[in-house]
Amino acid sequence: MTNKLTGWDDTIVALATPPGVGAIGVIRLSGSRAIAIINELFPSKDLLQQQSHTLHVGFLKEADTVLDEAVLSLYKGPRSYTGEDVVEISCHGSPYILQAVMDACLRKGARPAKAGEFTQRAFLNGKLDLAQAEAVADLIAANSASAQKAALHTIRGGFSANLKELRERLIKFAALIELELDFSQEDVEFADRQQFYALIAELGDSTSRLVDSFKLGNVIRNGVSVAIVGKPNAGKSTLLNALLNENRAIVSDIPGTTRDTIEEQLNIDGIIFRLIDTAGIREHSTDTIENQGIQRSLAKMQEADVVLYLFDVADEPADLPVFDAALEDKLLRVGNKTDKAGEEMARQKFVAYPQLIFISAKQGWHIETLKERMVDLVLRGQVQTEGTVVTNARHYHALKEVSRSLTDIKSGLDNNLSGDLLAPDIRRCLHYLGEITGEVTNDDMLDYIFSKFCIGK
Amino acid sequence: MTNKLTGWDDTIVALATPPGVGAIGVIRLSGSRAIAIINELFPSKDLLQQQSHTLHVGFLKEADTVLDEAVLSLYKGPRSYTGEDVVEISCHGSPYILQAVMDACLRKGARPAKAGEFTQRAFLNGKLDLAQAEAVADLIAANSASAQKAALHTIRGGFSANLKELRERLIKFAALIELELDFSQEDVEFADRQQFYALIAELGDSTSRLVDSFKLGNVIRNGVSVAIVGKPNAGKSTLLNALLNENRAIVSDIPGTTRDTIEEQLNIDGIIFRLIDTAGIREHSTDTIENQGIQRSLAKMQEADVVLYLFDVADEPADLPVFDAALEDKLLRVGNKTDKAGEEMARQKFVAYPQLIFISAKQGWHIETLKERMVDLVLRGQVQTEGTVVTNARHYHALKEVSRSLTDIKSGLDNNLSGDLLAPDIRRCLHYLGEITGEVTNDDMLDYIFSKFCIGK
Repeated sequence: MTNKLTGWDDTIVALATPPGVGAIGVIRLSGSRAIAIINELFPSKDLLQQQSHTLHVGFLKEADTVLDEAVLSLYKGPRSYTGEDVVEISCHGSPYILQAVMDACLRKGARPAKAGEFTQRAFLNGKLDLAQAEAVADLIAANSASAQKAALHTIRGGFSANLKELRERLIKFAALIELELDFSQEDVEFADRQQFYALIAELGDSTSRLVDSFKLGNVIRNGVSVAIVGKPNAGKSTLLNALLNENRAIVSDIPGTTRDTIEEQLNIDGIIFRLIDTAGIREHSTDTIENQGIQRSLAKMQEADVVLYLFDVADEPADLPVFDAALEDKLLRVGNKTDKAGEEMARQKFVAYPQLIFISAKQGWHIETLKERMVDLVLRGQVQTEGTVVTNARHYHALKEVSRSLTDIKSGLDNNLSGDLLAPDIRRCLHYLGEITGEVTNDDMLDYIFSKFCIGK
Repeated sequence: MTNKLTGWDDTIVALATPPGVGAIGVIRLSGSRAIAIINELFPSKDLLQQQSHTLHVGFLKEADTVLDEAVLSLYKGPRSYTGEDVVEISCHGSPYILQAVMDACLRKGARPAKAGEFTQRAFLNGKLDLAQAEAVADLIAANSASAQKAALHTIRGGFSANLKELRERLIKFAALIELELDFSQEDVEFADRQQFYALIAELGDSTSRLVDSFKLGNVIRNGVSVAIVGKPNAGKSTLLNALLNENRAIVSDIPGTTRDTIEEQLNIDGIIFRLIDTAGIREHSTDTIENQGIQRSLAKMQEADVVLYLFDVADEPADLPVFDAALEDKLLRVGNKTDKAGEEMARQKFVAYPQLIFISAKQGWHIETLKERMVDLVLRGQVQTEGTVVTNARHYHALKEVSRSLTDIKSGLDNNLSGDLLAPDIRRCLHYLGEITGEVTNDDMLDYIFSKFCIGK
């Protein structure tokens, strides 16, 4: 059966689980011949006669060679992820065996799937819109509660429903405006300018809320980079350990997760903080705000989203450096070693600086307060995370274009422009709205989007 | 429902797929509450009412938090891998999400599975015997066709069936002999000594065939170590590349497989050859059989299962070194650079050494011949791979004990010992036969065996 929508007729296969050794590994096939191909490798039962959404246990065999004992999950299109017939083969998790089973599928006529091709087919078969499809990749990459939540919100259609409703209302007006063009000689107005103005304003509000949410979306998706700076012996390395201590368990409980790549990440209230240049802190502890080291520290501070300036409360208030406004905006000054000097004494000494945070990294005192302040700094002036948060740069850029065309439409309306002059801006606005959910699309864009997926999804 | 056999009542959970990011990751639960636990996280359907071997798609939720959109595979005991109720949750392959779903299962009352605990339960519930259970771990570790074949042969019961049949026949005789003990005053012989002698001989044959197969089994399981030695500029590095060239694709097609760990392995006819100390060859090319380097080369040669001694055919026959018998036994002398000197001329020059192999590593000439000779060297004097091959050291040691007790029984029979003197040896023989398939077992042994499994299996 050839797919009616796209005309393709081939069956794709890929490893769907991470590479490496595990208890099981899953190979996934999708396409008109998916079940027929596996049926040739599964002598114990006629899979073509089986119902959708059923499981079948048995030996996979190619000619006389037993490949593995496996469990097959059968999904018949359109009731499947891709909308086509899908078979998932749950094999023993040996890379050698998975490769042998893959090879057998290829010999029986499947071809290797390209990155994201399963989800691309799901999109082309109308199982997901484009924003939902992209959220699948985001969900797989999710490394915090907020990233997981934003991606799931989009997968469940929250983001798209919002945009589609606005787009449909705009389309109605666009149709009326286009109709005016046909009667342009007669100077009629089918589209109520008052209502149109209200719609554009509403669209503008929604769009700028979404555009604004991208700053938070970016934080959710990519995390917040944090630099810890300060004089030698301010206790940077101790603070690093105090911050990291409790948070490691989150990911490292999964056996085999590489320690190196995660241990410098901190999950606070579902936001990922990435502690940059920690190797420098660990290995040398020679970073310094003093003259000779200032260049390096400044570069590090400029690069970071959040800067923790750590100092010893035994220092004098006059020693606290002053930074330019851009740096001050993302800076938290942290007085350390209250276990030695006493917190109360430190507060009195630095009474002129009410924003300071006093901690003892060694004793773990007020580390929680510091974390709260870090979160506050990131969320300050941000929209709430309730509802849709734009996490995808492509969506962000499309929304900026939507926003720009809305401004143009509005100024056109302000100047009482006629329909034929408003129409191009409206079309532009519709185009970019449609690009987000995939109602307007082109092959190059799709190929680009799905090529960033992992193989097997 | 408490398991009747073992009395346990807890439900275990573990990640079954390799750690890391993939299209999907699978979490597996087994136990009396497996379905009930997932049912609490799966609001869209009452899983308790569903049939075994069915698939269910929907959102996993804990209170108001959506965890993931997942596919559940339901298996009701005893029709499952473990014999208990089993649920497999196919999630999006984000380590973060997998951990979140795992955590939710733990909060609902599952506990983390120990290494191999799923397979251990399968064994304790009689779904697999011990040899079959151990072969599951071997299958997961399989990295060649022969390892895959040997493990699957055992999983399918080939090895166990063999042993069980012999053990049952021995048990019959043992019973008769034990009966004689009850009548020991009366000097009767219930067990026909002639038939018993024949059985012991047959058992002895089978056992020693199995014991002998372990050398091959070890090769299958662990591969064959190969050392390439020779004077500087004999072309060792070129030969290494020529040997490795075509073989890399086998494993490295699986994305993410680390190149470093596999590129020094060579799969010839389903046997893994591990090229040892190749870093030395690649980086220095200064290994030498000459005076100063001979110690290092000798150590390397002694360590290896197969030694390739490479020399330039421009050298004189008198320069070919002579090694002691143990080394000669695993040595292949390889004349290189026939592209320069000409193969025919080389053959004439070295006519006194008929076992030499002439190649051009640079041109790839006769590399296949060399590979065939390497396989011949490994398989020389080995039993055929048809049928059962012992790959497991525990089985090997138990079989050696079986063999020893058979020898004792035989000499007892030869000396016309009475039943009461034969009985202990027969019991010892039965004990070790039973240990292999798990009919005789103890908790410590089981814990040890399954602790070597991966988590989730």
